[in-house]
Amino acid sequence: MIARMASPVQKGAPGSVGIVETQYLELPRPIRLDCGRDLFPIRIAYETYGTLSPARDNVILVCHALSGDAHAAGFAKTPPPESTRDGFGASDRDGARNKGLGWWDGMIGPGKAFDTDRFFVVSTNLLGGCRGTTGPSSVDPATGAPYGSNFPVITVSDMVRTQRAFLDELGLERLAAVAGGSLGGMQALEWAVLYPDQVDAIVAIASTHAVLPQGVAWNAIARNAIVADPAWQEGHYYGTGRKPDAGMGLARMVGHITYLSAKALGDKFGRRLQFADDIRYTLTEPEFEVESYLRHQADAFVKRFDANTYLYTSRALTYFDLARQYGGGSLTRALRDVRARTLLIAFSSDWLYPPSGSEEIAAALRALGKDVECHVIDAPYGHDCFLLEEGRQTPIIQRFLSPAFAVPADARAVQETRFDG
Amino acid sequence: MIARMASPVQKGAPGSVGIVETQYLELPRPIRLDCGRDLFPIRIAYETYGTLSPARDNVILVCHALSGDAHAAGFAKTPPPESTRDGFGASDRDGARNKGLGWWDGMIGPGKAFDTDRFFVVSTNLLGGCRGTTGPSSVDPATGAPYGSNFPVITVSDMVRTQRAFLDELGLERLAAVAGGSLGGMQALEWAVLYPDQVDAIVAIASTHAVLPQGVAWNAIARNAIVADPAWQEGHYYGTGRKPDAGMGLARMVGHITYLSAKALGDKFGRRLQFADDIRYTLTEPEFEVESYLRHQADAFVKRFDANTYLYTSRALTYFDLARQYGGGSLTRALRDVRARTLLIAFSSDWLYPPSGSEEIAAALRALGKDVECHVIDAPYGHDCFLLEEGRQTPIIQRFLSPAFAVPADARAVQETRFDG
Repeated sequence: MIARMASPVQKGAPGSVGIVETQYLELPRPIRLDCGRDLFPIRIAYETYGTLSPARDNVILVCHALSGDAHAAGFAKTPPPESTRDGFGASDRDGARNKGLGWWDGMIGPGKAFDTDRFFVVSTNLLGGCRGTTGPSSVDPATGAPYGSNFPVITVSDMVRTQRAFLDELGLERLAAVAGGSLGGMQALEWAVLYPDQVDAIVAIASTHAVLPQGVAWNAIARNAIVADPAWQEGHYYGTGRKPDAGMGLARMVGHITYLSAKALGDKFGRRLQFADDIRYTLTEPEFEVESYLRHQADAFVKRFDANTYLYTSRALTYFDLARQYGGGSLTRALRDVRARTLLIAFSSDWLYPPSGSEEIAAALRALGKDVECHVIDAPYGHDCFLLEEGRQTPIIQRFLSPAFAVPADARAVQETRFDG
Repeated sequence: MIARMASPVQKGAPGSVGIVETQYLELPRPIRLDCGRDLFPIRIAYETYGTLSPARDNVILVCHALSGDAHAAGFAKTPPPESTRDGFGASDRDGARNKGLGWWDGMIGPGKAFDTDRFFVVSTNLLGGCRGTTGPSSVDPATGAPYGSNFPVITVSDMVRTQRAFLDELGLERLAAVAGGSLGGMQALEWAVLYPDQVDAIVAIASTHAVLPQGVAWNAIARNAIVADPAWQEGHYYGTGRKPDAGMGLARMVGHITYLSAKALGDKFGRRLQFADDIRYTLTEPEFEVESYLRHQADAFVKRFDANTYLYTSRALTYFDLARQYGGGSLTRALRDVRARTLLIAFSSDWLYPPSGSEEIAAALRALGKDVECHVIDAPYGHDCFLLEEGRQTPIIQRFLSPAFAVPADARAVQETRFDG
């Protein structure tokens, strides 16, 4: 099994994990989902960076957000076509995607926040995905045709149980850390609750224990846009020559605006017109630069992402609610068995996942005497900060993951007792 | 002409203008629009409340926002059908629409903010409207068919020039005040700039001199949702038996969320599920109450409002930019000829039209030595406050409109000179 664990890595630019190729693994058994259905077969797309220690105690699982994939770091062996280059989140920082860079390349690599000189970093495409892991565009063995909307409705717990089964296949029992931003942070939190004895630490960035009602609404609007598109065809558009690009483009536009702060959007575009001299009196064509930008982002996204995966993933992240799932409505009760050291990072301008979500988690963990750090970084870019503010996140994460701070499990148990008493 | 000025009013509940019937007037001449086209014929739907003074110096023009109409106060003679009852803005306060009440009934009537015992209040449906005034659903005399997207692209200036021509027909030369919220406030501001010698005062509530980039983006997304709906048929859906209800519903959903503060939405719905016991694992049906609410609002709105009017009006309000239109980029320069006393009211939780817009107008007017008041009311409901916070707006408006504060034009000129010097 060791052989398949190391992706074919060549050293590239300093601090880079080099050129990476996504690999695939089939799970040997079905996964029992929260909805009650068993899912099989399940293929997992994944990448790894760094070297597994002989004691297998240096594994970090990195979890991606709504529109991500397994390619978290390094250069893709086959860069994506130019037409799909829409940056990460709402930001086309440094034209990163142009170069085929992973979505969290600024954070994963030699000497970076998740230091591949020290850690063996594993990244998977989540369950329900469209980038190699089994999802609604995969073939349903019962019919021989793609699942479409017959794919079971999934939860963040289902994603995490699938990751657990995948890591079992790699022979990786214990995780030094699970880390992610946004929906990726939810997966990290879910790991800490579901597998308290198998996770030493979690890093949940720009995330929450439950999306706020406004976030539920934005996600509902995005999903409505997709299912209202006649090309969605009740979810069975594969092979018909039509797909819900219009609805999916709208969903992406809504997403983009919610990922950015109003100030960042203002700084980036202002009210600049497409044609500097004056307005054109057009009903349907872009007049403002921000309108043109939204259309470009929508056009690029629909080329690289499957609408059904968007639907299922958006639904899963609105369902996610630790207090409801595990605490009978109480977040503190939900977190009572957590043993992982917890690092929470939030951003002052993130109005989709505002700092209050992280602060509530921190308060609950502190009330339980658990080991938790919560940092609110004052930064202007909104939710997208988790992809952009690498420089300010890195020292916090490095310190959190440094050996001096990684208290052994036994010592931590004592420390907890002390806090409890 | 006097005869047609008084709507058939019966006294109803205390403080009510009673039962009102919308009236109609055809303009005798074309209006030259900003886009260069002449529009003719133009019919105006309007209502009036109160009694015109012999000196004709007590006229207040009330301007509505994006989804409003001429029925601003009192009970409609024919209440709207139940299926279209979706409240005003995002709020179904007191089931007001159920009773056929005007959209600003809490502000217009005997003893109210716009006191019909004192003022003669005129309310028109704006140009491009779908509630009686000529708009894209009206018949194009050149073709004998509805304009659809052949209707000219209009601006807030066009709306105001049309109101000016309409008031000419009523023999009302001078306005004691022009008042409105949101897009209605833009019309009030445009009045003060376009007709400085004909307006004594303006009241612009929850409004701005130019929508912020995020607002431009939300409006673009809403319009994209409509034009992406195949039932829109390039704007020529009238008489086809199909109309872009799905796209228009999405536009309304986006609107609703932007009209409410995140806190108000949270207080109203939280994360309450449709079925209290647990989630149902459904991809397309509402699971959360807020999802169900959005669908209801969308369904009701499409029954009472025309999608093309939404497009044209949304476009007009994003174009609106006093500094660009009249100041070569300078708001102060744009406002240099304003003579109307100006009352600006904004709300602390309004993130679509945040207080900064009003404050910038106030600063520019003050720099010019003009007579301006700016109030920021600390209230939780977001942009919808202008329809909800009647109790706190009323004393501010009453005092502003009271005779003691209404400085005669000559005295004001002196006062301005003093400020300028």
